[in-house]
Amino acid sequence: MELAQTHRPDSAGDPATPWTRAEFEAQLHAQGAGYHIHHPFNVRMNSGQCAPDELRHWVRNRFYYQICIPRKDAAILANMPDREHRRLWIERILDHDGYGDYTGSAAGGIEAWTRLGEAVGIARDDLWSLRGVAPAVRFACDAYVNFAASAPWQEAVCSSLTEMFAPQIHKDRLAGWPTHYPWIDAEGLNYFRSRIPLAGRDVAHGLQVTLAHFTTRPAQHRALDILQFKLDILWTLLDAIEKVCLNDTQPSRD
Amino acid sequence: MELAQTHRPDSAGDPATPWTRAEFEAQLHAQGAGYHIHHPFNVRMNSGQCAPDELRHWVRNRFYYQICIPRKDAAILANMPDREHRRLWIERILDHDGYGDYTGSAAGGIEAWTRLGEAVGIARDDLWSLRGVAPAVRFACDAYVNFAASAPWQEAVCSSLTEMFAPQIHKDRLAGWPTHYPWIDAEGLNYFRSRIPLAGRDVAHGLQVTLAHFTTRPAQHRALDILQFKLDILWTLLDAIEKVCLNDTQPSRD
Repeated sequence: MELAQTHRPDSAGDPATPWTRAEFEAQLHAQGAGYHIHHPFNVRMNSGQCAPDELRHWVRNRFYYQICIPRKDAAILANMPDREHRRLWIERILDHDGYGDYTGSAAGGIEAWTRLGEAVGIARDDLWSLRGVAPAVRFACDAYVNFAASAPWQEAVCSSLTEMFAPQIHKDRLAGWPTHYPWIDAEGLNYFRSRIPLAGRDVAHGLQVTLAHFTTRPAQHRALDILQFKLDILWTLLDAIEKVCLNDTQPSRD
Repeated sequence: MELAQTHRPDSAGDPATPWTRAEFEAQLHAQGAGYHIHHPFNVRMNSGQCAPDELRHWVRNRFYYQICIPRKDAAILANMPDREHRRLWIERILDHDGYGDYTGSAAGGIEAWTRLGEAVGIARDDLWSLRGVAPAVRFACDAYVNFAASAPWQEAVCSSLTEMFAPQIHKDRLAGWPTHYPWIDAEGLNYFRSRIPLAGRDVAHGLQVTLAHFTTRPAQHRALDILQFKLDILWTLLDAIEKVCLNDTQPSRD
């Protein structure tokens, strides 16, 4: 898989010299400008302008992303030769698939997303059937899993760093949805709540790996391209969901 | 990867008719005749005829197999679309890499094998350096990981069924080694002890998947070929270790 390469004017000094860790981390953070928090669909959703069916399309389609996550993380785990990294990374799979007695927060993120589905009016079996998942959503999520399986594990870890930007998007939902969408049972929002501390833990490990691995200027540029690839996946998901919503308000093409 | 196909006279009735589950399970069990418990090196080892250096070669080389196991299992996990199977399968990774506070039995199988290494006189760093691992051992273990990553997950699960035969080999060691090799600290044998109940749990899941998936006679034959492939890996490991021991007693080829 060839990643798109972004042309970047190399403003921060000699391009033959690597950025310092602080400069490199700042460059990674700066890519938050392209996070899907700024996508028109997310802006509409988080300002209370989505109809119930639009939220349902979002929950249904994003569910496909959610169920890809543990498989993506297992693919990375399979490529990790170092037990210490595996011991940290496996937590991500347990977070989503659940662990222990599989009740409460131990039921995992996929279960929490299923509750969100029920809270917006999608029955469990209906959500799990993947009915209504747009082909473009599948392609984008599958591209993420395939990248994770085929790239060096440090690159796959780097691609997870969109989590740096995730706490804000979850906080926005927790702050706004109870007012904007009072018909959604508050218990349905637990997925967003659960992700805030977990994202912090994940980012600490992801940044540690990324800052240690990409140590030349060309490698640092590649890290930015990888992060952009992942940002593109999330952005493309919302493009596709926006299109599903638009088609839904127009006459069927049948 | 093409598996070798064993020619089997189809003694159990019409080859167009699948074996019943009981017949198929009996066919799987019958392949235990090719388990490495019967390999001349294992027979020598378990009857107390190995010199300390020979046991060290075995522990060193088998360590490479041990560290491949969680990566093999993560590759299978990545291919499992079903959360219920993933929830069962991830236990295998936790068994080997450890979990929780990583102390005692929670330190995992790789740690227990490291203790076995120390008990036979191999320092931790020396073992982990993979010094003295024969190329043939790497090739065989890597073949197992690659099969697990590339085969349909049910086939990869089937390949794990050599665990059906593992409790006996561990019990033999626990029964014989304290007498045959009294210089090995008994604590070093904990790996063997720990695997007996875990193998039972793993086999229950592996058999459930295999009996449900391979339901035509050709498919059942393929399952037997897959199990034979895995038996060949274990057997080849001991062939290679036997060769290392032989070379060790002969003048160097340098």
